[in-house]
Amino acid sequence: MDFEYDAKTEDYRKRLLAFMDEYVYPAESSFHTDGWEPPAILASLKEAAKEAGLWNLFLPGEHGAGLTNLQYAPLAEITGRSPAVAPAALNCAAPDTGNMEVLAEFGTPEQQERWLKPLLAGEIRSAFAMTEPQVASSDATNIGTRIERDGDDYVINGRKFYITGAMNPNCKIFIVMGKTDPAAARHVQQSQILVPRDTPGLTVKRGMTVMGYTDGDHGGHAELIFENVRVPAANLIGVEGGGFAISQARLGPGRIHHCMRLIGMAERALELMCTRALARTTFGKTLAEQGVIQDWIAESRVRVEQARLLVLKAAWLMDTVGNKGAHTEIQAIKIVVPSAVEWILDKAIQTHGAAGLSQDTPLAGLWASARMLRLADGPDEVHKRSLAHRELKRYRSGS
Amino acid sequence: MDFEYDAKTEDYRKRLLAFMDEYVYPAESSFHTDGWEPPAILASLKEAAKEAGLWNLFLPGEHGAGLTNLQYAPLAEITGRSPAVAPAALNCAAPDTGNMEVLAEFGTPEQQERWLKPLLAGEIRSAFAMTEPQVASSDATNIGTRIERDGDDYVINGRKFYITGAMNPNCKIFIVMGKTDPAAARHVQQSQILVPRDTPGLTVKRGMTVMGYTDGDHGGHAELIFENVRVPAANLIGVEGGGFAISQARLGPGRIHHCMRLIGMAERALELMCTRALARTTFGKTLAEQGVIQDWIAESRVRVEQARLLVLKAAWLMDTVGNKGAHTEIQAIKIVVPSAVEWILDKAIQTHGAAGLSQDTPLAGLWASARMLRLADGPDEVHKRSLAHRELKRYRSGS
Amino acid sequence: MDFEYDAKTEDYRKRLLAFMDEYVYPAESSFHTDGWEPPAILASLKEAAKEAGLWNLFLPGEHGAGLTNLQYAPLAEITGRSPAVAPAALNCAAPDTGNMEVLAEFGTPEQQERWLKPLLAGEIRSAFAMTEPQVASSDATNIGTRIERDGDDYVINGRKFYITGAMNPNCKIFIVMGKTDPAAARHVQQSQILVPRDTPGLTVKRGMTVMGYTDGDHGGHAELIFENVRVPAANLIGVEGGGFAISQARLGPGRIHHCMRLIGMAERALELMCTRALARTTFGKTLAEQGVIQDWIAESRVRVEQARLLVLKAAWLMDTVGNKGAHTEIQAIKIVVPSAVEWILDKAIQTHGAAGLSQDTPLAGLWASARMLRLADGPDEVHKRSLAHRELKRYRSGS
Amino acid sequence: MDFEYDAKTEDYRKRLLAFMDEYVYPAESSFHTDGWEPPAILASLKEAAKEAGLWNLFLPGEHGAGLTNLQYAPLAEITGRSPAVAPAALNCAAPDTGNMEVLAEFGTPEQQERWLKPLLAGEIRSAFAMTEPQVASSDATNIGTRIERDGDDYVINGRKFYITGAMNPNCKIFIVMGKTDPAAARHVQQSQILVPRDTPGLTVKRGMTVMGYTDGDHGGHAELIFENVRVPAANLIGVEGGGFAISQARLGPGRIHHCMRLIGMAERALELMCTRALARTTFGKTLAEQGVIQDWIAESRVRVEQARLLVLKAAWLMDTVGNKGAHTEIQAIKIVVPSAVEWILDKAIQTHGAAGLSQDTPLAGLWASARMLRLADGPDEVHKRSLAHRELKRYRSGS
Repeated sequence: MDFEYDAKTEDYRKRLLAFMDEYVYPAESSFHTDGWEPPAILASLKEAAKEAGLWNLFLPGEHGAGLTNLQYAPLAEITGRSPAVAPAALNCAAPDTGNMEVLAEFGTPEQQERWLKPLLAGEIRSAFAMTEPQVASSDATNIGTRIERDGDDYVINGRKFYITGAMNPNCKIFIVMGKTDPAAARHVQQSQILVPRDTPGLTVKRGMTVMGYTDGDHGGHAELIFENVRVPAANLIGVEGGGFAISQARLGPGRIHHCMRLIGMAERALELMCTRALARTTFGKTLAEQGVIQDWIAESRVRVEQARLLVLKAAWLMDTVGNKGAHTEIQAIKIVVPSAVEWILDKAIQTHGAAGLSQDTPLAGLWASARMLRLADGPDEVHKRSLAHRELKRYRSGS
Repeated sequence: MDFEYDAKTEDYRKRLLAFMDEYVYPAESSFHTDGWEPPAILASLKEAAKEAGLWNLFLPGEHGAGLTNLQYAPLAEITGRSPAVAPAALNCAAPDTGNMEVLAEFGTPEQQERWLKPLLAGEIRSAFAMTEPQVASSDATNIGTRIERDGDDYVINGRKFYITGAMNPNCKIFIVMGKTDPAAARHVQQSQILVPRDTPGLTVKRGMTVMGYTDGDHGGHAELIFENVRVPAANLIGVEGGGFAISQARLGPGRIHHCMRLIGMAERALELMCTRALARTTFGKTLAEQGVIQDWIAESRVRVEQARLLVLKAAWLMDTVGNKGAHTEIQAIKIVVPSAVEWILDKAIQTHGAAGLSQDTPLAGLWASARMLRLADGPDEVHKRSLAHRELKRYRSGS
Repeated sequence: MDFEYDAKTEDYRKRLLAFMDEYVYPAESSFHTDGWEPPAILASLKEAAKEAGLWNLFLPGEHGAGLTNLQYAPLAEITGRSPAVAPAALNCAAPDTGNMEVLAEFGTPEQQERWLKPLLAGEIRSAFAMTEPQVASSDATNIGTRIERDGDDYVINGRKFYITGAMNPNCKIFIVMGKTDPAAARHVQQSQILVPRDTPGLTVKRGMTVMGYTDGDHGGHAELIFENVRVPAANLIGVEGGGFAISQARLGPGRIHHCMRLIGMAERALELMCTRALARTTFGKTLAEQGVIQDWIAESRVRVEQARLLVLKAAWLMDTVGNKGAHTEIQAIKIVVPSAVEWILDKAIQTHGAAGLSQDTPLAGLWASARMLRLADGPDEVHKRSLAHRELKRYRSGS
Repeated sequence: MDFEYDAKTEDYRKRLLAFMDEYVYPAESSFHTDGWEPPAILASLKEAAKEAGLWNLFLPGEHGAGLTNLQYAPLAEITGRSPAVAPAALNCAAPDTGNMEVLAEFGTPEQQERWLKPLLAGEIRSAFAMTEPQVASSDATNIGTRIERDGDDYVINGRKFYITGAMNPNCKIFIVMGKTDPAAARHVQQSQILVPRDTPGLTVKRGMTVMGYTDGDHGGHAELIFENVRVPAANLIGVEGGGFAISQARLGPGRIHHCMRLIGMAERALELMCTRALARTTFGKTLAEQGVIQDWIAESRVRVEQARLLVLKAAWLMDTVGNKGAHTEIQAIKIVVPSAVEWILDKAIQTHGAAGLSQDTPLAGLWASARMLRLADGPDEVHKRSLAHRELKRYRSGS
C-alpha cells in the first residue's frame, strides 16, 4: 500500500499546473458566450495545450496519451479547478471523451477515420443521446427511442433531452442509444448508432437550462426530436443489441473523470472560501476567526480528502481488476462525491454572501454542475439501491 | 390557545385561492421576460386583483387592506405558491411592500403624495438600496455609502448591489440607506433618503444573477453607482440618524411575508413531488412506492407544518407585543424557514430527475429564491449568533 | 388563532413550577435505586403532589383532573424537565397513565374497583404488555401471543419484551395484548386482557437495558414469558377483537404526553448547555463565546419552539376533532420530536465534555430515553411511511 | 500509488481472522463482569493469542511485533469487530498500548524492567491519568494537577477523572500528567510521572459511567484524587517539562488504533444490520426490501470505505513523514471516523428495533464507545478549529 503518485503522474501534474497558471485561469474572465458556441479564446488554448503535450490525456492506448485511470485521475482533478475552460482546452471534456473511447474501442476503421480522427484533433465536437424525458433513464430498459432496420439503413424515432453539447453547431456527430429489439432479453435490446447532425428528420429543438444556466459555452443541453431519421446500417457501433454493454464500458472512466473534476472544483471552492474568510471583516472579526466558518473549512478539507482517496481507489481497481471488480467503488463515488462537493460549494457561497450566488465568482455555476451530477446517469438513490443489493447479497448467500 | 384562522382570514383565503385558480396559475407559463420589464400579462392580472378586492393586502392601516400580520400571513403563503406572478399581481411584492410601509409610517405628506400614492396604485415600482458589495451588510454599522448635507440638498456617494427590482425602468424611486454622521453613536449614523431613478450621478450599472437567473420578470437585482447624486433635503425619510430604526421597523413584517411565501413555495413543491411520484415508474414501481421518496414526502410535510406554526406565532407576537417582543421568533423563522424549504425543493427536484433543474418546472427557480433568502438581510449564521446571545443572557443574568 | 395558554393552564403551570422547585429538583440527586423499586423518597413526593392538587393531572373526565389535552400538554412539558422524578411523583407516569385511561374508558365497574382505584391512588403500578421480540410490533397484526378461550377462562401463551415498569414488584397488574382470533379480519384479531402479576405461568424473566441503563427506578423493562397463564374471562377489557381499537385510543394522548415531556427534557438540556457554556473556559474564551456553541444553542432554541407548537396543535386537534382528525399531526410529532430532542441532548452532552456522558449530569440518561422513543410504538420510519401514504392519497384521488 | 496490503499484513490478517473465529466471537457471550476485573475467560484467550503469535502486535521495534503503523492498522480494524474482547486478548488494548509505547521509547532501563516488562507480558494493566474534571483537558496548558519536586521525591496533588482502566485492581501503575513548572513556557510546563497504584495519598474514588455503562470488563473509568502523593524522582518519565512532547508522541498511533477499531465496529454493525434486515419481515416485506434500509446500508458502506482509506493514509504518513507531516490527517480521522461510525451504529440499532438498544446485541455498547470517542482526547470541535487554522495559514502566508 502506497499513497504516492508515480513519477509520470507527478511530471504531468507539474506541467498541467503550470499550464493552468499560464493559460487557463487568465482566460476565465473572458470565457463567456451568449449563444451556443465556445468563446473565441478556446481555439488558442487548444493550440497551447497541444504544444505543451497536454492533449487527449484521458485516452488510454495508442490514440491518446496512454495513461492509466490512476495516472489520469489526478490530472482530471486539476482541470476541475476550472471546469468550463480546462477540459475543453485539453480536449478532455465530456461527453467527447466517452464518445472517443467508444469509437476507439468499438468503432470500425471507417467510423474511426470519419469521426474519431477529427474528434481527437479537436476539430469537431460530439454528443451522446441517451436520456429521455418520458422515462427514468437510469433504467436502460426503459428507453423508448426505436432504431429499426429497414433495408441497408436504420430508421430512428424518439425524443431525447438534456443532451449535453448538442446546441453547439460544431457538434457534428451524435451517438444515439435506442432499442433495436424491444422483445429481446433485458440487456440486449439496445444499440448505439452514429447520427450526423445534418441528417434529415433530426431536430435540435431547444436548450434546456440547469438552475438558470444555459451552459452555452460548452454547447448547452439540447432537446432532440428524431422523426424517421435514416442512417446507413454501417453507422451502427459494434453489434445489434450491444448498446447496453458499450454504455457500461464508458461508465467507469466517465464516473472517475467527473468525480475527480468535482474534487478539483471543491479544492477551488475551499481556496475561495479561505481567501474570502481572511479578507472579510464583520462584527469586528474576520470571517476566518469565526468558529462556524472554521468548522466549514475543516469539514470541507476532511470531506475532500476522503472523497479523493475513494476515487483514486476506484481508478486503481479499474486498472487492476476492471470495471466489474470496481463496481462497488464506481457506485460509491457517484453516491458520495457530488453531494459532498455540493455541500462544500454551498458553504463557499455562504461565506461570500450574495456575491457567492452572482456572476462575480465561479461558485454558483460550479454548484449547478455539482447538483446536476447528483442526477446525471441516474439519481443517487438508484445507485444506493443497487449498492445495497450487492452488500446484502454477501449475507444472503452466507445464510 | 386556538389554531383556527379567524373568519376574515378564511374569507380572504377563499377568494384568493379562487383568484389563483382563475388568474395566476394560468398565467405562469407565459410569465417570462427576456429583458427587465414584467411580462405584458401582469397589467391585466393587476386589474383583476383590484376588482377582486385583493389589492394591497399586506398593508395595515388606512392606506391598505387593514389586516393584522396574523391575518395577512396565510394570504402571503398562498401567493408564495406562485411567487413570480401572484405577489406582483396583488401589489404585494417585495421590496415595494416594505417601501410602502415605510412611506406610510414615516413619509411626509409630500413624499406620500408623490411616491406612496402611485406605488399603492401599482403605477410605479420602487427599490430599497441597502446592501453593498464591499462590506458585510448584515452589520448596518458597516455601511459605506455617504449622505452628506450640502445647503438645501443631500449629496450621496457610494456603491450598492443586489438591489432587487432596480433594473426595471418603471422602478422610479429608490430608498437609499447611507451614513449621514459616521461619527455618531453606532445606531444613529444612518439615514434613509428618497432618490428618483433619473437623478444625475446615479448609474444603474448591471443586473446581478442569482444562480443563473436574472430575475428579469421582477426587475432583476442591480448594481448601482452613486456619484455626487444630489437630492433636496426634503427627500430625507424621518430624521437624520433615523435610518437604522426605520430599517428595523420594516424588518419584522418583511420577514413574515418572505417566510410565509416560502411556505407556499414548499406546499407547491410538495404537490409537484407527490404528483410526479405517482406518475413516474422505474424498476417496476412508481416512485410513490419507493421508501426513500416516501421518507422525503413525510419529512417535507413535517417540516412545513412546523415552519408554518412558527411563522404564525411570530406574526401573532408582532400583532400583540410588537417587534421587540417578537425578536426571538422573527430571528428563528429567518434561521429555519429558508433552509427547510430549500431542503424540500431539493427533494422535489430530485424526484423530477434532470427536468427538475430545467425550465420545465418552477422548482429550480424556486430553489434559487430560497437559497437567496439564506443570505438576504444577513446570512443565517449572523442571526443564529444573535439569537444565541439572547438565549445565553437569560442564564448570565440569572447566575 | 391565539398562542396564549388559557387561565386554568397558567394557574396549573405556576403551581407546578413551584412544586418542581420545592420538591422535584431537590430530590433528583438521591433519586436512584440499585434494584427495581423506586427510591424511598418517592412516597413523600406523592403525598406532597396530592396536597398541592397536582395529582392525576393527565386524566380527563371525572376520575382525574379533568383537563383537556391542550391544557395538560404544557404541564407534561414541565414534568419532562425531571422525567425520572416528576411524572412518578404526580402519578402521571407511563405506562400507568395509558392503563388508567383504558380502564376508565373501557373497564367494567369490577375492573375499575379492583385495579383503577388503587392506580389512581398511586398504591400500585401497572404495565402494558404489547411488544414482542420475535415480530415487528409496529404492525399489530404481527402479534404472536395467543389469548384462547377455555370455558370461563382465557389462557395466554406468548413472549413479550421491553415491558416498561414490570420489574417493579409493586407493578401488580399487566394489560396484555394478544390474539383471540388469528383468523378474523386484520384489525379485530386482537384483544386486551388483565393479568395480575402473581398469576401462575407468568414469568418475569429479566430486565432489559436501554443503552447501559436498567431504568430500575421506574421499574425497568422486563422480558415476560406467558405459559398457559389462565385468567377469568371477566378480565377481558372491552370486547373480544377490540384490542386494536383500544390501543389506538390510548395512542394519541400517550404520544402527546411523551412528546411534551421530551420538550421539557430539551429545555432542561438547553439550560444546562447555556450554563456550562458560560462557566467553562478553553483557549482563552468561554464556550459561550465560541461560534459553534452559539450555533448549537440557536438551533436548539429554534427546534424546541417548532416542536412545541406542533405538539400543542396536535393536542388542540385531539380536543376539537378527535384522534382521527389529528392523525397526521399525531404521527408528525412522533417523527420529529424524539429526533429533534436527541440532537439537542447530543449537543448539550458535547458541551459538557466527558462529564456529559457520565452520571454527573442527567444528560446521558435523557439521551437514552429520547433514543428509545425513536423506536417505541414503532420506529420513526414506519410512521413516515404511513404519513406519506396519506399525503399521496390527496393527489391520487385528485388525479 | 497502490491500494493492496503487503504480504506480511495479509499473513497476519489471515491468522487474526482465524483467531477471531476460533476464540474471540465464541467468548463474547460470556465476556461480562459485574465488578471491575476482566472476565475469567480472558486469561485463556491471552494464552491462545501468545501461542498464535498474535501478541503485542501494536508495538513497533524490538519489544513488540515490529509492524509499521500501516501494517498494524488493518489488524486493529479486525480487533475492533469485537472491541471488548479482542484487544485485551491480544494485549493491544488502550491505554496500555500507549503506556507501553511511552515506556519503550522514553523509559529508563529501571522503569522498563519494573513496569514495561510485566505490561508486555500481560501480567498487569496500566492507566494514563490526564483528563481533569475542572478544566478543558483538550488544552494541555489548562492542566491543574501539580507535580512538585521535594528533595529526592515528587509530590503530586490534583484530581483526575475518566481514567480508563483504573478501577481494575490489577491496574498497577498510572502515568500521571501534571505541571512541574506552571511559570514555564506553554508547552514545557508539564511532566509525566509513574505512580504505583498503592502509593499513599492516591484514592481511586469511583467509577464513571458512559451512557449507563460502567465498562467494568476493561477496568472502568475512574475518578482519582491525589493528595500529597509522594514518589521517587526516578519515577519521572523523560525530563522535567517533557510531558507535553511525550503525550504528542503517543497521540498519532493511538488515534490510528482507535479509528481502525471503530472501522471494525462499523463493519460488524453493517453485518448485523444486513443480517437482521434479511431476517425480519414487516408489512409483508423483509426490511432488506425497504428502500430506507437500503439507503442506510449503502450510505454505511460508502462511509466505511472512505473512512478506512483516510486512516490508512494517515498511518502511511506516520510511517513515511512522521507525526508532524501526518498532522492534518491525524486530526481529520479524529473528526470524521467517530461520528461516521456513530451514524452507522445508530442505523444498525434502528434496524433492530428496541432489541438494538438492549444487552442482546453488541450495538448499544459499541455506540457508547463511538460516542465517547467524539469527546476523548478533545471534542471534535477543538480538532476542527485547529485543522481550519492550518488550512487558512496556507492562504494567509500566500497573500
